Amino acid sequence: MKPLKILHTADWHLGLVSWKSHREIDRLEEQRECLEKLTRVARDERVDLVLHAGDLFHQYYHPPREAIQLAAEVIVELAEVAPFVWLIGNHDWYAVEALQRVFPKNITVIRDMEPRTFPELGVTIFPIPYLPLSRFLADHPGETVQAMVRDRLRRTMEEWKRLFNPRHFHILLGHLTVEELAFYAEANASREVFLKKADFPHGFSYGALGHLHGYTVLEAPFSLCYPSSLVPENFKNPDQKGGFVLVELVFGEKPRIHPVFFESSALLSIDLEKPLGVLEVRRLIEERLRNGRRNYVRLRIPGEMLSPEWFTELRRLRGERFEVVVVEAVWDEEEHRESDQASFDVAALPELFARFAEEEGLSEDVVRLFEVYYHRAFEEEQE
Amino acid sequence: MKPLKILHTADWHLGLVSWKSHREIDRLEEQRECLEKLTRVARDERVDLVLHAGDLFHQYYHPPREAIQLAAEVIVELAEVAPFVWLIGNHDWYAVEALQRVFPKNITVIRDMEPRTFPELGVTIFPIPYLPLSRFLADHPGETVQAMVRDRLRRTMEEWKRLFNPRHFHILLGHLTVEELAFYAEANASREVFLKKADFPHGFSYGALGHLHGYTVLEAPFSLCYPSSLVPENFKNPDQKGGFVLVELVFGEKPRIHPVFFESSALLSIDLEKPLGVLEVRRLIEERLRNGRRNYVRLRIPGEMLSPEWFTELRRLRGERFEVVVVEAVWDEEEHRESDQASFDVAALPELFARFAEEEGLSEDVVRLFEVYYHRAFEEEQE
Repeated sequence: MKPLKILHTADWHLGLVSWKSHREIDRLEEQRECLEKLTRVARDERVDLVLHAGDLFHQYYHPPREAIQLAAEVIVELAEVAPFVWLIGNHDWYAVEALQRVFPKNITVIRDMEPRTFPELGVTIFPIPYLPLSRFLADHPGETVQAMVRDRLRRTMEEWKRLFNPRHFHILLGHLTVEELAFYAEANASREVFLKKADFPHGFSYGALGHLHGYTVLEAPFSLCYPSSLVPENFKNPDQKGGFVLVELVFGEKPRIHPVFFESSALLSIDLEKPLGVLEVRRLIEERLRNGRRNYVRLRIPGEMLSPEWFTELRRLRGERFEVVVVEAVWDEEEHRESDQASFDVAALPELFARFAEEEGLSEDVVRLFEVYYHRAFEEEQE
Repeated sequence: MKPLKILHTADWHLGLVSWKSHREIDRLEEQRECLEKLTRVARDERVDLVLHAGDLFHQYYHPPREAIQLAAEVIVELAEVAPFVWLIGNHDWYAVEALQRVFPKNITVIRDMEPRTFPELGVTIFPIPYLPLSRFLADHPGETVQAMVRDRLRRTMEEWKRLFNPRHFHILLGHLTVEELAFYAEANASREVFLKKADFPHGFSYGALGHLHGYTVLEAPFSLCYPSSLVPENFKNPDQKGGFVLVELVFGEKPRIHPVFFESSALLSIDLEKPLGVLEVRRLIEERLRNGRRNYVRLRIPGEMLSPEWFTELRRLRGERFEVVVVEAVWDEEEHRESDQASFDVAALPELFARFAEEEGLSEDVVRLFEVYYHRAFEEEQE
């Protein structure tokens, strides 16, 4: 039986704008560069199959026009190389599934759990799209939903094994969290199902995952891999590298996983311990640059040392290869303020609620009402 | 030279929900029926070209998933019959243009004024998409913009004539208002350019227009036609019929325009002059039904006669073939309240503003700020 060469990618988050509450940085040009490399590799390596494990877009509602255009260009190009399979993630644009009819024939969009067979490739895909717990809340009290959904998935995966064709590869394609990695920023046990490594049955050829950013391979009970996103997103994990993986499946052998990393930018976090002049800070940054082209810099400064003037000057700092995107006062009693804040973005609330309402089948009036209250509360907070 | 058979349609407004402030009616099923008829005719008549003169969608931001899906199905089906040309209207979903790369090859989306030639058909399309005056306001004071844009269009159309190929048909495709018809609900002189009949130069083979709903043909200086929308929308024009046109172009002859009408529903307005019982009102409605399947009924009642109980009972009235969608009190001093209100929908303000802001290149923060103020003002009004 023929070996299979897969390009496995995930979490493009096209339309991402970083550090909104500090210095807003649109990441689209960076993402475009990464995707140029990705399509070039797909073409040069003549891959047989491209798997996208979810979150191709960053926004559920209206992603920017330019992000849509980039997505359209890239997926059409990839689909010219090989069948393109796109599993819907929690961030993905709601319109994608409905648009499926206009997509070229060899683009498959998946939001259900129906296995898909590609006979010409000798491969079957077993999909687990993002499963928000809210979808099951109506029938089950909050406490038990996590356990129930997890159990259901375990049984489904066992049942899938009965469909296995001994002459096929069997790939699990999932947008989900493996509990052992739940320290990643994207994981959220109150919103989505967590699976433990031991929940996955033996017998799959490969597990193509998405949702958690950062390249990770789990070796038991079969090879499960997160290929990482395109660009390093935030200072929670400043060493995260964007990338994707090339996977070679050969019958009777372990999959060979080759990560390919992007070098579009680097994050640099510097703690200033004394009130240096702006020129000195600039020199300090330039000495430590980690990327040849784009370095996003966070400056952390003891709160008692930080004057408004200095703060303003530091915030404006940028060079040919770097931009200061966050200037943060650190107080002893709350050492990691920015990082903690980052775990919940208040501005995202209305959007989150709108998605929740859609999943729950609530009317748009409820969403609007929520927005009214949200804006009021937000303003009161500001005043 | 070969004659040309065109299907010309416009103003589908997929995603339209009518009578939001009274009884909300989702029109999608009706629209689906109309489009089934339209695609059937396109196939049976083997048309050479399908022209859509704008407003295929009703919403600029997130049209409902089902509306997107219906649109995708229909345009792919039509594009299998003949090249499908879609001019962007004022209502159209912002994402369409950006999605163009994924569309099948014979779907052309137009939002500029570049002529498009289809050599295999012997036809050139000269497009005038919806031109919001706001786009020109930055460079010109409000008063003169209307005249300036109108003048510019007149000159452009004259220049286009120099591109005419004597062996081609030359079709003007426009989403705009002809001033002589500006009594239509959709026309708005403070937002968009108005062209007079006399502004159109001689020499075009046919003018395929959209924007104003209701079938209309203007015979000078060449045949200009509005084909109507899919469904009758509101009681401003209860006799409006949905439809499209088949147009045959033969060299040296006037275009032959055959309107095809839909019969998906009818609007019925009844003035009650005395306080009839609910059963009597039902009988009255049933005697006057205008459509075999769907009749949307407006009841108008002298204000001094209307009690809250009666109002509530009437609002609930529906039969197998009708629904009361508006119950309206009429006071002598303000006879046509509902109609006047309908000319400006306050709830649409944030969306309108968002579009304006996009055209003006304003940041999303401005839009959000606007929403805050809007919601506050709206609530104060309610209290």
